[in-house]
Amino acid sequence: MAYNLLKGKKGIIFGALNEQSIAWKVAQRCHEEGAEIVLTNSPLALRMGELNKLAADCNAPVIPADVTSNEDVTNLFTKSMEHFGGGVDFVLHSIGMSVNVRKSIPYTENNYDFTHKGLDISALSFHRVLQTAMKMDAINEWGSVLALTYIASQRVFPDYNDMADNKAYLESIARNFGYQYGVKKHVRVNTISQSPTRTTAGSGVKGFDGFINYAEKMSPLGNADADQCADYCVSLFSDLTKMVTMQNLFHDGGFSFTGVTAAVIEQMEK
Amino acid sequence: MAYNLLKGKKGIIFGALNEQSIAWKVAQRCHEEGAEIVLTNSPLALRMGELNKLAADCNAPVIPADVTSNEDVTNLFTKSMEHFGGGVDFVLHSIGMSVNVRKSIPYTENNYDFTHKGLDISALSFHRVLQTAMKMDAINEWGSVLALTYIASQRVFPDYNDMADNKAYLESIARNFGYQYGVKKHVRVNTISQSPTRTTAGSGVKGFDGFINYAEKMSPLGNADADQCADYCVSLFSDLTKMVTMQNLFHDGGFSFTGVTAAVIEQMEK
Amino acid sequence: MAYNLLKGKKGIIFGALNEQSIAWKVAQRCHEEGAEIVLTNSPLALRMGELNKLAADCNAPVIPADVTSNEDVTNLFTKSMEHFGGGVDFVLHSIGMSVNVRKSIPYTENNYDFTHKGLDISALSFHRVLQTAMKMDAINEWGSVLALTYIASQRVFPDYNDMADNKAYLESIARNFGYQYGVKKHVRVNTISQSPTRTTAGSGVKGFDGFINYAEKMSPLGNADADQCADYCVSLFSDLTKMVTMQNLFHDGGFSFTGVTAAVIEQMEK
Amino acid sequence: MAYNLLKGKKGIIFGALNEQSIAWKVAQRCHEEGAEIVLTNSPLALRMGELNKLAADCNAPVIPADVTSNEDVTNLFTKSMEHFGGGVDFVLHSIGMSVNVRKSIPYTENNYDFTHKGLDISALSFHRVLQTAMKMDAINEWGSVLALTYIASQRVFPDYNDMADNKAYLESIARNFGYQYGVKKHVRVNTISQSPTRTTAGSGVKGFDGFINYAEKMSPLGNADADQCADYCVSLFSDLTKMVTMQNLFHDGGFSFTGVTAAVIEQMEK
Repeated sequence: MAYNLLKGKKGIIFGALNEQSIAWKVAQRCHEEGAEIVLTNSPLALRMGELNKLAADCNAPVIPADVTSNEDVTNLFTKSMEHFGGGVDFVLHSIGMSVNVRKSIPYTENNYDFTHKGLDISALSFHRVLQTAMKMDAINEWGSVLALTYIASQRVFPDYNDMADNKAYLESIARNFGYQYGVKKHVRVNTISQSPTRTTAGSGVKGFDGFINYAEKMSPLGNADADQCADYCVSLFSDLTKMVTMQNLFHDGGFSFTGVTAAVIEQMEK
Repeated sequence: MAYNLLKGKKGIIFGALNEQSIAWKVAQRCHEEGAEIVLTNSPLALRMGELNKLAADCNAPVIPADVTSNEDVTNLFTKSMEHFGGGVDFVLHSIGMSVNVRKSIPYTENNYDFTHKGLDISALSFHRVLQTAMKMDAINEWGSVLALTYIASQRVFPDYNDMADNKAYLESIARNFGYQYGVKKHVRVNTISQSPTRTTAGSGVKGFDGFINYAEKMSPLGNADADQCADYCVSLFSDLTKMVTMQNLFHDGGFSFTGVTAAVIEQMEK
Repeated sequence: MAYNLLKGKKGIIFGALNEQSIAWKVAQRCHEEGAEIVLTNSPLALRMGELNKLAADCNAPVIPADVTSNEDVTNLFTKSMEHFGGGVDFVLHSIGMSVNVRKSIPYTENNYDFTHKGLDISALSFHRVLQTAMKMDAINEWGSVLALTYIASQRVFPDYNDMADNKAYLESIARNFGYQYGVKKHVRVNTISQSPTRTTAGSGVKGFDGFINYAEKMSPLGNADADQCADYCVSLFSDLTKMVTMQNLFHDGGFSFTGVTAAVIEQMEK
Repeated sequence: MAYNLLKGKKGIIFGALNEQSIAWKVAQRCHEEGAEIVLTNSPLALRMGELNKLAADCNAPVIPADVTSNEDVTNLFTKSMEHFGGGVDFVLHSIGMSVNVRKSIPYTENNYDFTHKGLDISALSFHRVLQTAMKMDAINEWGSVLALTYIASQRVFPDYNDMADNKAYLESIARNFGYQYGVKKHVRVNTISQSPTRTTAGSGVKGFDGFINYAEKMSPLGNADADQCADYCVSLFSDLTKMVTMQNLFHDGGFSFTGVTAAVIEQMEK
């Protein structure tokens, strides 16, 4: 169901890879709600994924950008502003990768070159996007910027490895840049702390299946899925949420404020 | 601007008194978004306020209820369900009163009879509403329940007196009943922690003017007003936010995650 | 091992019942560390428990007090100040009881008379102790006041029932009275959020055994026991922690910041 | 006053530069409490500071180490274990530096090479210390590790620049490595969130004077100083706090849980 909530708005969506991607669903929903969008991902991801299919569905240009490159991010905003004939109203950052995780290096044996690389992609990229946008005055008054995060930034999930630290850093950027962009141009910046979701990225984490079942049993409403996350993003890009900023917003069926459930206790007694 | 976000939904709004009330604005916005509503307040408030005007605007019945009375709350749900021909989809709890505040009794000299009375009205009333609704199966699957709260539940604002403790209790009810109602019927329960707002209730707090100016200077986006709060409530009653539950959601222009601003530091140097 | 950390200090310990009680262990450890203490509990608890044994060990008077009575609490401080020849340096509040829990009334069917009664004993009693002390100027400069709480105040543990709300209220009192007493007399006020502990009070909670096992598996250091809690209280009563105030301090082997452990995931896969 | 709280314990103190340093005070207090210590800092800091004076007072060897070098940190633990004839019981990490801050580059114009460099020194160094220690089995059972942090990790203080993000990352390491080291060897890891303190490092932050005055007015007990911080560290290195782990512990006179004070409101009305 569509409401025209984003009619006339323009946005940039980072990180859609394939139909499982949260960013893919967000792009579709934003399009349904009347927004015009630009899609972007790294050149490598563009080769591996199926983004052209989404681009056709959403009538959206695809502009490649390596988020660890100032030039690429600058080029992305330049081209997007040309395409839209002006600034954007919303941005979704759905990007994360840890080399330590990929190489199955435990948290207690991390390689710090890999750690820096993961931080650059997963967290500093968010700062770079915001800093570039501010320099180019690329986000309109009362714009809305979102990044996806995970509760491991606040509590320990051992297999999440250094992505936990990256997400803590990402959430800190949301607060700090949210202050700066709020004061300067009423732009709001928030993170969504999403349930574990069966995406290509999520599935890379060790023990993901056991974990997603645990999260399901620990969430009074069950795990939130990618479609529901897209709905939530739409509400946060819309004009209904203009004064929500600098927050980490949980979208997880109640997981984060549940200490234990009857279902888990039952399992513990087996 | 309206989007038909609440088309077909039915809700109960507690606590509208006059045009300054947040609940008043919420009722209007819900009506604009296509919801049918029932308005309620205490018999005393109904005599003092102007609720009939709102009722006419929204085409809504007014059903008096003293929220400290099990009978009254039961009667409210009975009548509402008769009126709607079924259950409700959303509820707003916007109720708070401290006798200690009213009588200008400092926090360090509180009268405990007054404390209990204030808790009953401001916090236990929320439990009573939820408990009664659950007993009567009065809230539909995937319904949404909101209560208004204030950051004093988490950090100290000395003049807020025992309302701070009441709000901490209220937020705890949201978590605990949110769990129970989530497991049972996918009903979500959240609180909104709103900027200080010039309502009849807010103005009763000592030093309110000095304080609202401070909050304005400490909020990167400025204080959120009642109209903006109504917009946010609409998003949380809508189907876009089904997996958001058991949370305290700040709606305050960034106040709660701001440690200090340039504007406040400047004032401190005077 | 003793360090004379509390030499010359005087304190009041609420809530020791028998050797399992945390308050019992705290009294013993404070005595070992050179403090003089007064023991207190309700007249009923004094009849059921074995407090005289502890009193003899610690050379401490026992002064009965019903914490829901202003007179009793006033009398307690009067007698304590006479006994000590002056004010006290520390206070432990280890008191909690829910009538709804005792009567096995589920959270969704609470009786509000019982709720008020439980709040009075479990939370407002803490305000009463602090308010009475302030009125009588019974706590010395840089004194330290502690209350015991539980993580259910912040996240949902379904069987904890309305004690969760009571503990949220208690923690709010610690913040709010901590501010007032800090400004007035540099007295600090904190709560300790302790692991589930096999005491007479703890054991009353339904499903306690299953739960304590879960907590053990979810705590990197295991559950903290009553002896360890007593050690921690000693550190917080000592002069080493003068600037720690208005906080909820977790003493739980890491439980509260652990999202999941390998041990729990393993159990979930059975 | 000394209590022999750390008698027989051995520890490593990072980051003492001169008498203003918190680490300097911690070293002195640990020595007073009976601990044996090793002092370390970067080769550059050793040339600029007066560490030999402290070393003489504490009868402690000084072992230079650049915390961004795996070799140096390995060498530090090797030499320390030789010196002590075994593992250590406690570690203090008091290290932080942002190149962006030093060069007065605003947060919205950060140079990312500088950002990586600052993260390496201020946060990843903590991971490196813990990872190296674990690999070498250099910390004894039930050891205690502390790092100093600041509330800017949780709320925005605009002039704190990218150190805010570094501190958020640091606190995440404390949680995540605290889990790993807790499970493996009962080692606890915590951060202390200290009041702004007039040290060489602190003074480098722009607008520090205005800010420290604001913090003083916003703290019911006033700002905590370096001597008080040293006392608190002693309590956390001692056996009294064995079950406290994975936490961020505020040591700030109540600042972090104070929303506003009468003193600040008064100033705002000027």
